[in-house]
Order: sequence, then structure tokens, then C-alpha cells
Amino acid sequence: MKVLVLGGDGFCGWPTALHLSDAGHDVTIVDNLSRREIDLELEVESLTPIRPMGERLRVWKELTGKDIGFVNLDLAEEYERFERLLRELSPDAIVHFGEQRAAPYSMRNTIAKRYTVDNNVRATHNVLVAIVSSGLDIALVHLGTMGVYGYGWSGSAPIPEGYLTVKVPTPDGDIDREILHPANPGSVYHLTKTLDQLLFSFYAVNDQLRITDLHQGIVWGTQTPQTSLDERLINRFDYDGDYGTVLNRFLMQAAIGHPLTVHGTGGQTRAFIHIRDTVRCVQIALENPPKRGDKVKVFNQVTETYRVRDLAELIAKLMDAKIANLPNPRREAVENELNVARDKFSELGLNPTVLSEGLLEEARDIALKYRDRADTSKIIARSVWRAGMETSPDLV
Amino acid sequence: MKVLVLGGDGFCGWPTALHLSDAGHDVTIVDNLSRREIDLELEVESLTPIRPMGERLRVWKELTGKDIGFVNLDLAEEYERFERLLRELSPDAIVHFGEQRAAPYSMRNTIAKRYTVDNNVRATHNVLVAIVSSGLDIALVHLGTMGVYGYGWSGSAPIPEGYLTVKVPTPDGDIDREILHPANPGSVYHLTKTLDQLLFSFYAVNDQLRITDLHQGIVWGTQTPQTSLDERLINRFDYDGDYGTVLNRFLMQAAIGHPLTVHGTGGQTRAFIHIRDTVRCVQIALENPPKRGDKVKVFNQVTETYRVRDLAELIAKLMDAKIANLPNPRREAVENELNVARDKFSELGLNPTVLSEGLLEEARDIALKYRDRADTSKIIARSVWRAGMETSPDLV
Repeated sequence: MKVLVLGGDGFCGWPTALHLSDAGHDVTIVDNLSRREIDLELEVESLTPIRPMGERLRVWKELTGKDIGFVNLDLAEEYERFERLLRELSPDAIVHFGEQRAAPYSMRNTIAKRYTVDNNVRATHNVLVAIVSSGLDIALVHLGTMGVYGYGWSGSAPIPEGYLTVKVPTPDGDIDREILHPANPGSVYHLTKTLDQLLFSFYAVNDQLRITDLHQGIVWGTQTPQTSLDERLINRFDYDGDYGTVLNRFLMQAAIGHPLTVHGTGGQTRAFIHIRDTVRCVQIALENPPKRGDKVKVFNQVTETYRVRDLAELIAKLMDAKIANLPNPRREAVENELNVARDKFSELGLNPTVLSEGLLEEARDIALKYRDRADTSKIIARSVWRAGMETSPDLV
Repeated sequence: MKVLVLGGDGFCGWPTALHLSDAGHDVTIVDNLSRREIDLELEVESLTPIRPMGERLRVWKELTGKDIGFVNLDLAEEYERFERLLRELSPDAIVHFGEQRAAPYSMRNTIAKRYTVDNNVRATHNVLVAIVSSGLDIALVHLGTMGVYGYGWSGSAPIPEGYLTVKVPTPDGDIDREILHPANPGSVYHLTKTLDQLLFSFYAVNDQLRITDLHQGIVWGTQTPQTSLDERLINRFDYDGDYGTVLNRFLMQAAIGHPLTVHGTGGQTRAFIHIRDTVRCVQIALENPPKRGDKVKVFNQVTETYRVRDLAELIAKLMDAKIANLPNPRREAVENELNVARDKFSELGLNPTVLSEGLLEEARDIALKYRDRADTSKIIARSVWRAGMETSPDLV
């Protein structure tokens, strides 16, 4: 299958591109290297050393004999070039990771809020319009987020995979209606993924585009079998307050003797997935697209749920670290249960990678190996969700 | 009250600015004159002759002694200037009409689809971010559309004002949840108003912005008491296939001896409001804002519902015209009932203007007076909603 991976230089995009190439697909990465630019802006880097795209692809070719193409292109700003690219390459499918993906970054300031909305909405809409305009029957797989659902909205029912059937009262009695799960975004970043959902619904109805939306949990881990092949293929490991995800941040904090920073009580339950499963889920979604005229296919891309403080305690024990409770910048419930429907990937053969000592140790070893590259001044999240909120003090 | 009217040069914005000024509010119009630019692009003009903004405001001042300010500014592209304007003027409220508002135009081609999304989403988001960033307690009134709801979704229940309470099944029995009415947009234009709704919800929750969304029906009529004061204050009368709304198009078609163009069977029932009521509704919404911390306040801004073919027959009889049934470009039900909740404006004192022979004659007289300005080649809608659809033939 000929596949474009939009955002193929990022934390999820890069291992996905390698995984799909390894699985025999003909992959071209489209990326404007914006993730590297944001590193420059934030004056922080991946804990793991990330090589230039040209070198990454050269090494992959040397090791596997497989070519991956690369086009440096801004999806939000360079529509015409993107549409031409579709006509030239005529791909069977597009995997769309090409969006600003950090919630704290999206709340950082006025510029970041506007960039996140402008970039993400335009990128997604341009992809949809270009597919329609090309006249090609290209299936689209998009990375969404569990954050579109919010937490606790469904009561004791599991969060469904995208849709739920509700009863609507009418003078003639209740009628059943299937609705897209109501949107409850907790940040501007999450908000953009709820906007994406409406764009997808419209183009699935109006133009019969074949679209899959993957509502992913928090990703942990760094390496996949492909990125482990050579240090020059290594994946990102973000530990900073904006881009670091919670489990990786804990591992890295422990590795450098920093207290594990838990926001609020840590009673928030969240859904997780290992990066190895991210890439397998994307492949499954790609190989099982909806048919023309189908509604948008939604999968919950998660394998486990944990309470944040339980994760902190796990890592504190594994690596002999302390825990520090900081103010929580987010408007969210202090404690929540979380029950997520995740049958669709299981039915399609996903055998999930669960949080295990072995994998935690692998991640810990990466944190230990590269800990000298860490800038401890970047660990605390500085984004203020709303007026009047304080940021946390430095702890080291 | 100090009020900014964004999009105050347009069909709804201009009479609203005059009405609010007449009612004693201190009005400043913000507009990039994009509606006039689109006229240039489409090679068509308002049937009524529209004067330059400077002249319009000079005449208003001469006749009433009232000043209306004007700032030529692009909301989507000139964020910094807009934020500065808020800090300088410190308005109490903003009325936001600053979006591309024609469904057929939004489906015209790739450029128009992208422009509509990019312009509307960025304009709305910039307004929200600027209010937050200014730190001012500015109430926002936004013009939405009945088209966010779709038609027929609620069965025999009236379309509610924004929200509905549904029953969600859980293992512990059904639970009641209030949801924003699910989005069922029929065009890219309507889609942008569903995106706006999610932006509003988020900023009402996260930043306690005070926001009112007015889901307006199809506007008919041209003049308000203020725009009638002098020909140089006259309001737009759009008759073309992109920007003309159905009733005004019928009146103008009849005035020049063109058949009344009904798409499909004309069995679509739609909600209507006279432009005189639009401006009064906006004033009522402005003077009854939500409190800080309230959810977004949603009004259905409609006064009557009609079947399109009944309107066509009414005008055909009034003006001795023929009716022509053309293919319908929209993916919509051939026939639908429509029952709209519209209690909130009534409770706040709106005494609705209903479709009456007197007002139809006023509108007919405008169409007759200016009919020589019409370009008959612009009457047929040319936008193709989806691949494979044909446009209608010219009829004259």
C-alpha cells in the first residue's frame, strides 16, 4: 500500500513510518519539521539525540534496503503543493499526525493558542479538501485523542468508541439517536481534535471520504523494534513540562534525582498505550478502512488505565525517587474513574503491550543513559490554563 | 454600552450597527470589507447601491448626530491590531458577524472551502483569545445559524434552543445529560458555525467568557427603519446564486420576469426572520448577557417557518411569476417538517414581524426599483456540493 505519513518526524509519526515500511508498505513522510522548531523555541531537546531526517532515512535504507520518501511541506500553509503531491504520488492512504500535539504548549500563551488552532484546523481541513479535489479514493487515518471525551461524562458506562446511542425525548415518546460522543476538551489542543471530528463527519457525509479517527491515550515508552535497530533511528523522549507525557516524565525525573511531579492529588485516572502498540494500531486501522459512504470509523487506541499517583508510586519504588504534589493547572475533576471501551482493536488482533517491569526498565535505561542531556529548568510545566493561576516552583 | 460590531459592513451587520447606534449605544464597526471584495470576485453587486463606508457613516452622523466608528481590520489575519483595539476602546460587548456567510459560496471550489474554514475559525478564535488576553469582561454575541441543527434530527420534538437533555444508557440505568444539540451541517459554511460552537463552549468553561450564540434562520427583507432614512444608508439586497437568500431571490426574479428557481421539490421547510427582527434580537441578546461562569446562552433567532414551494407560490401569485424546479445541489431530505423552539426571545419582549403582504410589497418595490442593476447571468447557483453533480441550466 502506498502511504503518506503526515507528521512523520514526530514522536508517534516516526516510529509509525518505520513500522509501516518494515511491514512492506511504500511510505513517504510529509513533515515541516515543526516539532524541531518548537524545541528551538522552548530551548529544550528530546532527551534522546534525534538525527536529521536525511540521516534517519539513509540509515533505514542501509539497514533494511527500504526507501522512505520525505517531503518538507507545511500542511497548513502550502495547500497547493500538497494537492500536487497527492496527484503525483496517488497514495492509497494517508496517516495524519500533522498537528501540534501538546496540551500544555497549547495553553502557554496567546501565540501558542492561536498557532494550535490555526495550524491544526487548517492542516486537517486542507488534507480533506485535497483528497476531495484530487478525485482519488484515499483512505485517511487520523490520530485523535481520548481527551475529546472528557472524564466522567458517561457515568458508569464505558467511554464508547466514538458514538453512543441516546434517548431523545419527543412528544411521541423517546426516540433513539446515535450521536458522536459529546465533546469535553480540557485544553486548546484537545479542542482542536474535537473540531477535527466535525470536519471528518462532514466530509464523510458530503464527499464519502473514508476516514478513521484514533482516539489515543497517553503514550509511554520510546522505542519500537525498528527505532531500536540503530541509535541514529532512535525515537524522541520528551521530558519537559510542555511535551513530556506523564510516565516518561516520571522515569526521567527519577533518573536525574528530581522529585516526580504530580499535579493535584494524582487521583486522575488516564488511559495509556505503549508506543509499540501505537504503531501496530495505526497499521491495523490502515488495513481495515471504512467503505465509501460509511460514517467515520472511531477506535479507542488505549490498552490500560492507571491513576497518575499509582504510576508515580510504581516509578518511585522502581527507581527510589520522591514524589512532589504540585498545583493542577487544569480544570478537571480531582479524582475520576475511567472505563474505556476498547474492543475494536482486540477484535482485529491487537495483543496489547501492558505496563510491565521489563518495559519500564527499558524506558528507565534510556532515561539513565541520556540523563546528562536533560535541562532541569525545563521540567516544571509553566503553562497557565486560566487567569489567576500560579505556576509551580522549581523543585531542584 | 460601548459595542464593537464585527462585520458591520455586511447585510446583517450594517443594519445592526445603525439600530444599536439609534438605541443609544456607542458603536464601532470593525470590518475588512471582504463582502465587497467577494462581489468583485463574483462579478456581481448588491441590487441596491451600497455606498462606501465613509459616506454611510457621514450620512448617519448628518441625519442623527450620532457617531459610529470604523476600523478596517481583518480579524483572521490581524490579531495583534485587534487585541490592541480592545485594550484601547475597552468595549462592554462585541457583536460578531465577521465571517463568510454564504453556504453556496462555501461549496464553490477548493479555494472558497478553504477560505471559509480558515477565515471563520480563525476570526472567531482570535476574538476569543483577544478577549481573554485583554483581561476585560467583554460579553460576546455571535451570529450562528439554524443550519447547525440539521433538519428532522429531533423527530417530532421542536428544535431546542441550543441544548437538549438526553438519556444515556449505563449499567446503573439511564442517566440524564444535557448536551449541545448534535451538529448536522449541510455545507462548509454551516460546518464553520458548528466549529464556532465548540470554541465558545471551551472558552465559556475555561475562561468564563460570557457568550451568546444566535442561531438565526434565513433572513428576508432589506430595510430597517434606520437604513430607510436615506438612500445612501440602504442595506444590501443580494439576488445571486451564492449570496441571495431564498425569499429575496424570488422577489427579484419575479421583478425581472425570471422564473422563480426552486431547488428540488421545494418541500424543504425552513425558518425565517425579517431583517428588522434580526437587529432587535441582537439588541435583546446584547442587553441580556449571561453571567460569568454560565454556559453559552443559545437563542433560536427565527420567527416563522415556511415550505420553500409555498413561498414560491406566494410570490408567484403576488407578482405573476412562473416557477422552475431545478436540481437540488444539497444532500438533504426532499421534504421535511420543522418545528423550532423560540420562546427565549418572546419572553424577552420580541414582538415578531411576520410575513405579510405589506412587507412583501416593500421588498418587491425595492426589487422593482433597482431591477435594471441585475445581472441575470448570476441568478443560477453554480456551486457543486459534491463530485458528479450538475449545475442547473440558465433559464433566460
